[in-house]
Amino acid sequence: MMVDERVREFLEKVASSSPTPGGGSVAALAGAIACSLSEMVCNLTIGKKKYADVEQEMKKLLQQCSELREKFVQLVDEDARAFDEVMMAFREKRGIQEALKRAAETPLETASTCVAIAEKTREIAAKGNKNSITDAGVAALMAKTAFYSALLNVRINLKEIGDTAYIRRIDEQIKEMEGQIERLVAETMKIVEEWI
Amino acid sequence: MMVDERVREFLEKVASSSPTPGGGSVAALAGAIACSLSEMVCNLTIGKKKYADVEQEMKKLLQQCSELREKFVQLVDEDARAFDEVMMAFREKRGIQEALKRAAETPLETASTCVAIAEKTREIAAKGNKNSITDAGVAALMAKTAFYSALLNVRINLKEIGDTAYIRRIDEQIKEMEGQIERLVAETMKIVEEWI
Repeated sequence: MMVDERVREFLEKVASSSPTPGGGSVAALAGAIACSLSEMVCNLTIGKKKYADVEQEMKKLLQQCSELREKFVQLVDEDARAFDEVMMAFREKRGIQEALKRAAETPLETASTCVAIAEKTREIAAKGNKNSITDAGVAALMAKTAFYSALLNVRINLKEIGDTAYIRRIDEQIKEMEGQIERLVAETMKIVEEWI
Repeated sequence: MMVDERVREFLEKVASSSPTPGGGSVAALAGAIACSLSEMVCNLTIGKKKYADVEQEMKKLLQQCSELREKFVQLVDEDARAFDEVMMAFREKRGIQEALKRAAETPLETASTCVAIAEKTREIAAKGNKNSITDAGVAALMAKTAFYSALLNVRINLKEIGDTAYIRRIDEQIKEMEGQIERLVAETMKIVEEWI
């Protein structure tokens, strides 16, 4: 898996003339980083007397963020694979529409996972250790950027898809998710601003 | 250096109950990723007949992005070090103000490096290979998030600093940089939108 590479090697591979890993994998990695930061805030809350009231909730949130991180880690690889399959379909002149749909749906899954982590991050910012509030803020910003980065990759693939009903369905999903993540991140940043 | 760790290990360390690496290091890493994506677009432009006119410029931009990436990579470590020094100063009850200033100036350098890469990314989006336009878009979004993530870390450290003239000076720098990066990223995203 790509996360088994050293950070420096990953950065080199992104920078190289190979189109994968590219923006789609980076979007998923940004999502994973948002999860890690949210987990850190949970870990810095659990066991603190001042936050004993939210201890059980923080343990649950920690577990949920950790699961979302693992999902993002899978998506880093899946996005590169979906892109490579599009390239192959174009070369072989077959299965192009199917490959494009998979290449649109993979970053769409990244985007929906971003909404999920943004929701956890807001809870963590509201109830977690306020000494780490900027980390929750960075987590929210990373989740939002991961979301919009994923969307760019959805849209570039949709562009070549002829199935208008399919495009309309995805557009509706995007619209709904966009409203959700904007609200969640705005709420998180409002909490952050109160403390810095 | 932290970039010599595997991506998975880096994500684990961020997630752990140790406060470093935290949001400041993540901001610098996000900046490094923005550089890598910008470099990729350069690499996918260089050597293409269609883009022969901009070949020399792309080679220069590639080199500049690569240097900025190395600077961000250094800042990943420096931010963690500056934070650890603040903790030590508080424990030893001496040199606190100096340590806080260093801990504010390190993410401030991250922020100014974000402005620098955002400028390169805009050039690359405008003149580089349009097949990779979404990667330039993701680079711009990552640079902007890295910038605001770094700012959260500047501000949390400024909060404890008593030197009002120092704070005013930094606030002015931030204001100027904020105007620059907003403009640069908006220009980049306008180009991206034309192509997707």
